[in-house]
Amino acid sequence: MKALVYDGSFRFQPDHPDPKPGPGECLVRVHVAGICATDLQIARGYMGFRGVLGHEFVGTVAAGPPTLLGKRIVAEINCVCRACDMCLGGLANHCRKRTVLGIHGRDGCFAEFVAVPERNLHLVPDGVADEEAVFVEPLAAAYQVLAQHPVEGRMNVAVLGSGRLGLLVAQVLAATGCKLIVVGRNAEKLQFCEKKGIQGLHVDEFSPRRDRDLVVECTGDPSGLELALQMVRPRGTVILKSTCAEAGWVNLAPIVIHEVRVLGSRCGPFVPAIDALARKSIDLRSMISRTFPLEKSLEAFEFVKQPNCLKALLQCGKAK
Amino acid sequence: MKALVYDGSFRFQPDHPDPKPGPGECLVRVHVAGICATDLQIARGYMGFRGVLGHEFVGTVAAGPPTLLGKRIVAEINCVCRACDMCLGGLANHCRKRTVLGIHGRDGCFAEFVAVPERNLHLVPDGVADEEAVFVEPLAAAYQVLAQHPVEGRMNVAVLGSGRLGLLVAQVLAATGCKLIVVGRNAEKLQFCEKKGIQGLHVDEFSPRRDRDLVVECTGDPSGLELALQMVRPRGTVILKSTCAEAGWVNLAPIVIHEVRVLGSRCGPFVPAIDALARKSIDLRSMISRTFPLEKSLEAFEFVKQPNCLKALLQCGKAK
Repeated sequence: MKALVYDGSFRFQPDHPDPKPGPGECLVRVHVAGICATDLQIARGYMGFRGVLGHEFVGTVAAGPPTLLGKRIVAEINCVCRACDMCLGGLANHCRKRTVLGIHGRDGCFAEFVAVPERNLHLVPDGVADEEAVFVEPLAAAYQVLAQHPVEGRMNVAVLGSGRLGLLVAQVLAATGCKLIVVGRNAEKLQFCEKKGIQGLHVDEFSPRRDRDLVVECTGDPSGLELALQMVRPRGTVILKSTCAEAGWVNLAPIVIHEVRVLGSRCGPFVPAIDALARKSIDLRSMISRTFPLEKSLEAFEFVKQPNCLKALLQCGKAK
Repeated sequence: MKALVYDGSFRFQPDHPDPKPGPGECLVRVHVAGICATDLQIARGYMGFRGVLGHEFVGTVAAGPPTLLGKRIVAEINCVCRACDMCLGGLANHCRKRTVLGIHGRDGCFAEFVAVPERNLHLVPDGVADEEAVFVEPLAAAYQVLAQHPVEGRMNVAVLGSGRLGLLVAQVLAATGCKLIVVGRNAEKLQFCEKKGIQGLHVDEFSPRRDRDLVVECTGDPSGLELALQMVRPRGTVILKSTCAEAGWVNLAPIVIHEVRVLGSRCGPFVPAIDALARKSIDLRSMISRTFPLEKSLEAFEFVKQPNCLKALLQCGKAK
């Protein structure tokens, strides 16, 4: 099959072996996949990953139990052991032995086919198009903010970073009715916020005043925490979303002096994300900057690095 | 009066002007004061403080309302405006306009007398000696851990750092019945733990395994967070107690990947600290390494830097 792989070098491979689903796994024909910042890091060799990249996708079950065959699905990316202390303790996403689609120890979805544990699958409602469903995984990561911290109308909230994840988090938070600003660097992306009725501010025009109850840090840069700490009020919360491959120079003193709560936040719940798409309450289509065929995925990876790019998709296993 | 001051240079001053209490303030004759890590930083010019150092003390009200005159007291160190959003919102310790005894904008207690707002005072019970009461402020900071995070018997807890604050936190946590280890560098201080029935481990003999529900970081060093992040379980909590004047090189990725909660923690509640001393449930006298007369406070500051020193006290305004 066609696949985008990293095995020391990053390349498109027209004749990669098809995945062989293990026990309890389905074979899924990938329709559309999304490129995220983590993919860019993996393509540079970070995290030591080897195999097929990609973890955001929508597809059809091509081999598996009859009840699922031919069904359109999205899939959670953490493949877990169900036996370790984390799994038994109700924190399966933190399974000690987990593999993660296209990120850690398991082939991902930038290919015609991908093998996924059956229990990871979620059906996609009929009214949700592939181009929307492909956002379920990152949208779930945005909903994780609400799973970790209650947000309601009186709260002053800021999203720091106007990239792909920042704009998803902003839309999820805006729906709570909280007082929201998005602080970013890119004029076009801040305009996207304004179109959604969300206040967007350029970081250079913004004076942090330690007055935000909650700051969601989505900059993708270690320096994001420092600015977030200047924005959050004493005893407020910073949710860290950026997984930076590199360490950074950070002054931790404001965390202690202002007794700030810093919450790391990774994968999130698929159900509210799918529900939001079914209700059409979040607009994702206008975030799609361009769709590339899988064969042109190297070009797509270059495109994603452009500052104005919101989301680039890959058309994988099924001609549309 | 005699006082230890920093005004660009750090020195003992035999003829410093007496403090003049403002409205709502008492004049307190200082009996005994304790030297803490923050004092060492201030004596090196950090935080830009100018004035009399010191914030841990016990004393007698020398001028103030008749109900307090002659009473033995300890005092909270944050002097607040009662009008800003933090004060009105119930977070007075984070008052936007606060001054802090011997730390920020207000003379401290390494002197014969100190002026303190009346509302900051707490009476010391008769059965509590000066040499115990002088620990109330740092012991309150240790109790802040329990105010921020419930701790009970089933929990695996680690204290990182066996310095003054680490040993206070360890004793407060041990009383909850949780499974506790103290990880430190100093053999003598780790022996102090063992004498209290608390497991003490040298950091070189310790393999972090991401299995602690709670890690309280008391190392005083920016690198403490990195080790704490290797010790805490996914979705566990790190309480940061170290206020490091300098920034450090920190890899924040484990916070995000393991969805760790990092809580900054500063000053704490005086009442449980005073109660613990009244109940004799925490042993502090054996933490006193040496007491110096105020005149020898420069010598005391050198003494505190020795690795084996636990707590050094200054005998201030009253001969014993």
